[in-house]
Amino acid sequence: MSKKKKQVNDSYVTMTELVLPNDTNTLNNLMGGRLMHWMDIVSAIAAQKHSNRIVVTASVDNVSFSKAIQLGNVVTLKARVTRAFSSSMEVRIDVEAEDIPSGKKFASNSAFFTFVAVDQSGRPIDVPEVVPETEEEKELYDGALRRRQLRLVLAGRMKPEDASELKSLFNLTNGTDDQA
Amino acid sequence: MSKKKKQVNDSYVTMTELVLPNDTNTLNNLMGGRLMHWMDIVSAIAAQKHSNRIVVTASVDNVSFSKAIQLGNVVTLKARVTRAFSSSMEVRIDVEAEDIPSGKKFASNSAFFTFVAVDQSGRPIDVPEVVPETEEEKELYDGALRRRQLRLVLAGRMKPEDASELKSLFNLTNGTDDQA
Amino acid sequence: MSKKKKQVNDSYVTMTELVLPNDTNTLNNLMGGRLMHWMDIVSAIAAQKHSNRIVVTASVDNVSFSKAIQLGNVVTLKARVTRAFSSSMEVRIDVEAEDIPSGKKFASNSAFFTFVAVDQSGRPIDVPEVVPETEEEKELYDGALRRRQLRLVLAGRMKPEDASELKSLFNLTNGTDDQA
Amino acid sequence: MSKKKKQVNDSYVTMTELVLPNDTNTLNNLMGGRLMHWMDIVSAIAAQKHSNRIVVTASVDNVSFSKAIQLGNVVTLKARVTRAFSSSMEVRIDVEAEDIPSGKKFASNSAFFTFVAVDQSGRPIDVPEVVPETEEEKELYDGALRRRQLRLVLAGRMKPEDASELKSLFNLTNGTDDQA
Amino acid sequence: MSKKKKQVNDSYVTMTELVLPNDTNTLNNLMGGRLMHWMDIVSAIAAQKHSNRIVVTASVDNVSFSKAIQLGNVVTLKARVTRAFSSSMEVRIDVEAEDIPSGKKFASNSAFFTFVAVDQSGRPIDVPEVVPETEEEKELYDGALRRRQLRLVLAGRMKPEDASELKSLFNLTNGTDDQA
Amino acid sequence: MSKKKKQVNDSYVTMTELVLPNDTNTLNNLMGGRLMHWMDIVSAIAAQKHSNRIVVTASVDNVSFSKAIQLGNVVTLKARVTRAFSSSMEVRIDVEAEDIPSGKKFASNSAFFTFVAVDQSGRPIDVPEVVPETEEEKELYDGALRRRQLRLVLAGRMKPEDASELKSLFNLTNGTDDQA
Repeated sequence: MSKKKKQVNDSYVTMTELVLPNDTNTLNNLMGGRLMHWMDIVSAIAAQKHSNRIVVTASVDNVSFSKAIQLGNVVTLKARVTRAFSSSMEVRIDVEAEDIPSGKKFASNSAFFTFVAVDQSGRPIDVPEVVPETEEEKELYDGALRRRQLRLVLAGRMKPEDASELKSLFNLTNGTDDQA
Repeated sequence: MSKKKKQVNDSYVTMTELVLPNDTNTLNNLMGGRLMHWMDIVSAIAAQKHSNRIVVTASVDNVSFSKAIQLGNVVTLKARVTRAFSSSMEVRIDVEAEDIPSGKKFASNSAFFTFVAVDQSGRPIDVPEVVPETEEEKELYDGALRRRQLRLVLAGRMKPEDASELKSLFNLTNGTDDQA
Repeated sequence: MSKKKKQVNDSYVTMTELVLPNDTNTLNNLMGGRLMHWMDIVSAIAAQKHSNRIVVTASVDNVSFSKAIQLGNVVTLKARVTRAFSSSMEVRIDVEAEDIPSGKKFASNSAFFTFVAVDQSGRPIDVPEVVPETEEEKELYDGALRRRQLRLVLAGRMKPEDASELKSLFNLTNGTDDQA
Repeated sequence: MSKKKKQVNDSYVTMTELVLPNDTNTLNNLMGGRLMHWMDIVSAIAAQKHSNRIVVTASVDNVSFSKAIQLGNVVTLKARVTRAFSSSMEVRIDVEAEDIPSGKKFASNSAFFTFVAVDQSGRPIDVPEVVPETEEEKELYDGALRRRQLRLVLAGRMKPEDASELKSLFNLTNGTDDQA
Repeated sequence: MSKKKKQVNDSYVTMTELVLPNDTNTLNNLMGGRLMHWMDIVSAIAAQKHSNRIVVTASVDNVSFSKAIQLGNVVTLKARVTRAFSSSMEVRIDVEAEDIPSGKKFASNSAFFTFVAVDQSGRPIDVPEVVPETEEEKELYDGALRRRQLRLVLAGRMKPEDASELKSLFNLTNGTDDQA
Repeated sequence: MSKKKKQVNDSYVTMTELVLPNDTNTLNNLMGGRLMHWMDIVSAIAAQKHSNRIVVTASVDNVSFSKAIQLGNVVTLKARVTRAFSSSMEVRIDVEAEDIPSGKKFASNSAFFTFVAVDQSGRPIDVPEVVPETEEEKELYDGALRRRQLRLVLAGRMKPEDASELKSLFNLTNGTDDQA
């Protein structure tokens, strides 16, 4: 029997937050930890929508924070599931910040969070596959395999030499071919 | 004139948190985003102690969450600066969870956060160097270079082929030598 | 010189919230006051986007709460400016709740909040007009006049007999004609 | 057997809140949504005291916000049940704000919230009747019928032409008499 | 010129709080620290009302917690200034808890907090004297001197042998007289 | 069978908090109530670690607040159980504040909180004895008896003349001997 499949759009979630005093440091900038808290909630909702299950955060990929987001800014977080692996789902989150009175809007950062769908006793349970449709969705779908290997290597659960997809990230297969 | 130096211990911080209802999901487990919020605060304090400056979160390395932390558990977060690069500092955070009534205690996870020291106008400013002393401190100090290259590659700010230290993470230099 | 005009879509905002323990009463249902807090934030952002100004809540129209929203549900709030009057804007908010594991989704309620755009000293300042385009937008635009009269009458700032638009809400003009 | 009756005073509640940074917008004024959150809590307690039951918010009447309440101000909310209808109770809330150092105190606004008493399964359950005693209590008791009709009409659950009490709010019965 | 005087009633404040999930421990009982947080806010407001100044907490007398207050209970805190000493004020707080559905209400505890009135630079500034009127107010007023000596002795700022009022608390003056 | 014993170090806990806007009053100083909330959590954890039980706050001894702790300061709270009496434990908390950018660090205050260990039904249950080892631990252990008598006297549960240990606090036994 074939497994259920879902589109990327089925898990799409938009969350909007207003930066309040308690979210900021003494420079009146949004603290990174607060932003990650929001990223976790929006991506958990996306993973829930894809799986129709309770989900738990399994990992967070490298996140970098470039430009400061300030007190009073409006932060928009958009999340969608890019690919599923048995019971786990990779979610892409894009964060945008806007200073509405001045009309300034900028892409703040993006990240990948991974979730595992669980049943009521907390045991992992399979989720539908993702069917990517647009070019961007397909690119994210393909890259998910590579990012998954990096996660496994960094967590010490895969040997680097077995991370075939990952090597391509570093152009290393070609590089070593050239050297050989 | 020689630059100021500081020991790893100078930045050491311990934070203890009790998992309250609002920190949990519907399975009564601590949400990943809340934990990252705490990790950001404890590591920011460590970076502040090292630099005696206001600091802003620059990046978070891959974090993985293994075992569920539950409502009522006590979470202990320990942070220390492992290495400084001009105005940036890498902080290592180790998280431990404890179910006190049952006496069960376990290492939950660990992570590396990077901070930039800034002046009152938010401009980056140099920080003291780190002098590692114990074996563990030296290992973390050495690995910091490799992790920094991974961050730069992932952020698209360094070409993978230039990440000399990073290759060793994947045993790739040796690997390719062996293959040659 | 003609005044600036904006479309309804320019102010459209979506906010998603997860119902956490502290948002609920002892029946594990979302408290009405917490929902109104969210409605105020999402509609303030819509009004800010329309006016590119700081805004203050001027009034909230009658809101009714029908079906209970429960702990763990995902609440989606959608807001858009329906019409502007000098410095004030009427915002329509639609609230939807979803129990993701069971796949149950329902329209919770809708409401109208009114905001005034102010300058840095808190003085009212004119905002762009709204140009309704779709049928629904036009209907909301037209009804705004009637709702505004009801607000003024209820606040004791307009005599009921002057509320020409409002009478039509109660089919009273016709009604009295029939009686005559 | 006659139904239990209670006085207005039996449900009287006073709540005092200090306006903290997170309650304010970028002008340092209390946000409307935060005030409504407090109004909901204080009026729910009043309804609980009247009914000795768990209560859920059924509706909020039109609320208008006139003068800004500022950071550091003390907000006093007073609530009491004005009238009961089977399982529902109308609660009147009066809000007062005070800038204590300057000694300035002003009536901020007032509102009517409606609650339904429920049993442990969430089913509506009858509550005691209200016995108004003072002139003010009697006036609020009488007006409750009119406000209830407005709520039902606005919620689309009563035809405007059947809202006999409501018409008097708009002086419409007389008006039509005059016209006839 | 004689100093301004105020009555106890001028500083009287009532605060009502609903015990929410995050206020409780794993037994669903209100945590002592949360209650003290509320006691501090209500008594600071009382001290502000007496002095029309910004106030800072100077000390908290011994507080004991007898009976558990539970999730969903309504907590009523009543505070009033009992006596002033130059720039400091003693505030008495009485806490009552109520389980409304069961109609159970009990005196939870009472405490004395001390505040100092300060100007905008944080320097202590004199406050009006308290004029006690009822028997209870007079008793609290007289006891304030004794409690103040205990605070000073416990803080190491008064020698026990100089605490003349305090000795009477322990019936020691009489006791030694009897022995002599 | 001999009762289980534990060392003071077994219950030692360090908690670090960053003073955020909502923790402060209008002078940007940490509010006393917020600090007591933190003191309660850290000392409850210490008592939990000593007893491996759920604990409830029984009492708080006199706490005095000397120097203002400011917005952005880092507050370090250290707690340890000093002595146990059947089911109750006295915990000593030492609070230190630090303004990291300026390098200023100061002892803010210290306090004694008392907790009772309870079983799942909330009934008191015996806890291990404390074995003091260092000079400081022994001094705190000895003083615990005296502080316990003061608590009992202040709570009206012990007659002052029976508080043999307490009299020594006031040097009263000697004093009266001398007078005799």
